[in-house]
Amino acid sequence: MHATLSGDAVRAGERARERFYDSSGYGHPVDGGALELAPVEAAHLLYRGDLEAVEGPDGAAMDFRAFLASAAVSEIAFLVYKDLRDRGFYLSPARAGWSDSPAAREAVDDPAVDFVVYPRGSGPWDDEVAYRVGVVSEREAVPAGDLGNLVLAVVDEESALTYLATEHRDISGTSEADLPEGVSGELLSDRLLLWDPPAAIYDRGFYGQPLDDGDGDAIQLSLLEAAFLAREGVLDVDGGAAAVVDRGREVEGERFDRRLRVYESLRERGLVPKTGYKFGADFRTYADVESVEDLGHSELLIRVLDGGHTFSPRDLALDVRLAHGVRKEMVFALVDDDPSDGDSDGIEWLSVTRLTP
Amino acid sequence: MHATLSGDAVRAGERARERFYDSSGYGHPVDGGALELAPVEAAHLLYRGDLEAVEGPDGAAMDFRAFLASAAVSEIAFLVYKDLRDRGFYLSPARAGWSDSPAAREAVDDPAVDFVVYPRGSGPWDDEVAYRVGVVSEREAVPAGDLGNLVLAVVDEESALTYLATEHRDISGTSEADLPEGVSGELLSDRLLLWDPPAAIYDRGFYGQPLDDGDGDAIQLSLLEAAFLAREGVLDVDGGAAAVVDRGREVEGERFDRRLRVYESLRERGLVPKTGYKFGADFRTYADVESVEDLGHSELLIRVLDGGHTFSPRDLALDVRLAHGVRKEMVFALVDDDPSDGDSDGIEWLSVTRLTP
Repeated sequence: MHATLSGDAVRAGERARERFYDSSGYGHPVDGGALELAPVEAAHLLYRGDLEAVEGPDGAAMDFRAFLASAAVSEIAFLVYKDLRDRGFYLSPARAGWSDSPAAREAVDDPAVDFVVYPRGSGPWDDEVAYRVGVVSEREAVPAGDLGNLVLAVVDEESALTYLATEHRDISGTSEADLPEGVSGELLSDRLLLWDPPAAIYDRGFYGQPLDDGDGDAIQLSLLEAAFLAREGVLDVDGGAAAVVDRGREVEGERFDRRLRVYESLRERGLVPKTGYKFGADFRTYADVESVEDLGHSELLIRVLDGGHTFSPRDLALDVRLAHGVRKEMVFALVDDDPSDGDSDGIEWLSVTRLTP
Repeated sequence: MHATLSGDAVRAGERARERFYDSSGYGHPVDGGALELAPVEAAHLLYRGDLEAVEGPDGAAMDFRAFLASAAVSEIAFLVYKDLRDRGFYLSPARAGWSDSPAAREAVDDPAVDFVVYPRGSGPWDDEVAYRVGVVSEREAVPAGDLGNLVLAVVDEESALTYLATEHRDISGTSEADLPEGVSGELLSDRLLLWDPPAAIYDRGFYGQPLDDGDGDAIQLSLLEAAFLAREGVLDVDGGAAAVVDRGREVEGERFDRRLRVYESLRERGLVPKTGYKFGADFRTYADVESVEDLGHSELLIRVLDGGHTFSPRDLALDVRLAHGVRKEMVFALVDDDPSDGDSDGIEWLSVTRLTP
């Protein structure tokens, strides 16, 4: 069968529509009964032996090897396309006019989406989209703004693939504690001590950590916990909340303010944030704390980032793998440093999980 | 008992030697039968109620609370000291003249060491040291040069402790493969394809990844693998090894050279390095590969760093926790960019593992 590369598409003859589109979902039909294939689709048909060659603009015939080595097709896009085909999916490039499905047409407007993948058994003539897939090499930086409603297909340097599902989500819980006001605390260099606080601070609110493993009198508070409790009127400390925040900025820089905003937002949403240090994260969170004695496992790991953050796929892989290993969900808190919408707290919650398509 | 803070030590009266040093290993005896205590030791005796107060230079008596809040004692050092005491250890501050043990005297010369910890049942009057401990807050940066022969005691922002054992180690394995020379490969944008290579490249040497899961003809090589094989004369590629290295620098910057040095060193030591991407590391390594069919689990995760790297304790915690979860050992390859010693390859291997003292 004759197939010709022209611009960024490969045009194949009349029988192509029947053989490739109708039976297997490759390409999209164009006027006159011909079929247009994206280069990655043509590469896959060459790879399978369904096409023998593609004629280049210079008239030379390219076999699979020559076509893959040419500038017409990205090898990492090919690897992902092939892998999804191997897994039994039909998929289309996210290009205007390439798919009948409304969901696919929507994906066309999102430059981060490379492929729309249909549910197994469906194709471009159906209405459903299973995954919107963006292809990146391990070495590419991925802007946080690209993520959410996207499956990231990462091709590592040895050509193995990992899929990461990203989505924006709501965060909420039912933890709340009635705490007394005016509990006094003492600011040390980068933490606070409450020498003889009401038991509810720790037992019900799960603030701080006892100095002693047993029922010690003294509770150590982190600067974040202290800043929050001082603003709430629960904690009474020399210089007030401002003194605690100043100390936080001294030891941590502007990162402290960003983390405090996330801490406050989590508390307001009914979650108890505790340090995620042992997991390399900012927080682990408990959604439903009634008392420390009945504490379950924490559900989320939260990493606080600037809203304009760009991810390295390797760092993403590390976070997501660790969270998976400890049966928690990895959530990135993307903090808009200058939120324009007064109603929102300017924090976007981005969940990232491993996916096996 | 009377105890007085003077400079950076607390001097306690005569009975102190018997009560605190002879029976429990606090402080060190000084001329005239008195006992000198480090502030952190005095704080612990105050905490236990064995001392009632320490008199400050201004003559004021400080109880535990006042002493801990004073500048005399670091609260994070106190937390670590207390934890190790709670675990049944005697320990001394790493100060000249503070311990009789030769091993402890050696630790005094290492500014990263804060405490020398004796084996359970031993003390400053014995010869053995179980751990050399450096105390850091979660927020402190830790220079790579401080690590090795050191247990890092990290105090997180909520005052919980983690111990990380660091040591320099040798790396070696038994993997080797006899490979033919002059195998031809084709450089794509950031990987290479060998279209019909000898089976030994993958099967015996574990280089590359088949394009197909089955016994495909084509093997994909990473740029690192290709640069190494081209230098070895195994791979024949347009422009030689230099072309591959140039491409590596293009897509990865100077990091590529550093990773290539580590890759080469590992191969020369008889290990097979493969990508560590899924673990967020540079490499995972197999020590004893005879053939890909008999492949065991990889043993090490390697992260490549510049020799002058400073660690954030949180990143360390993340790496070490992940490695532990997948039953591998975390090893940092510290690359000296300008090795002065011609005999060495300028790479130091630093192993970091979790420790429960």
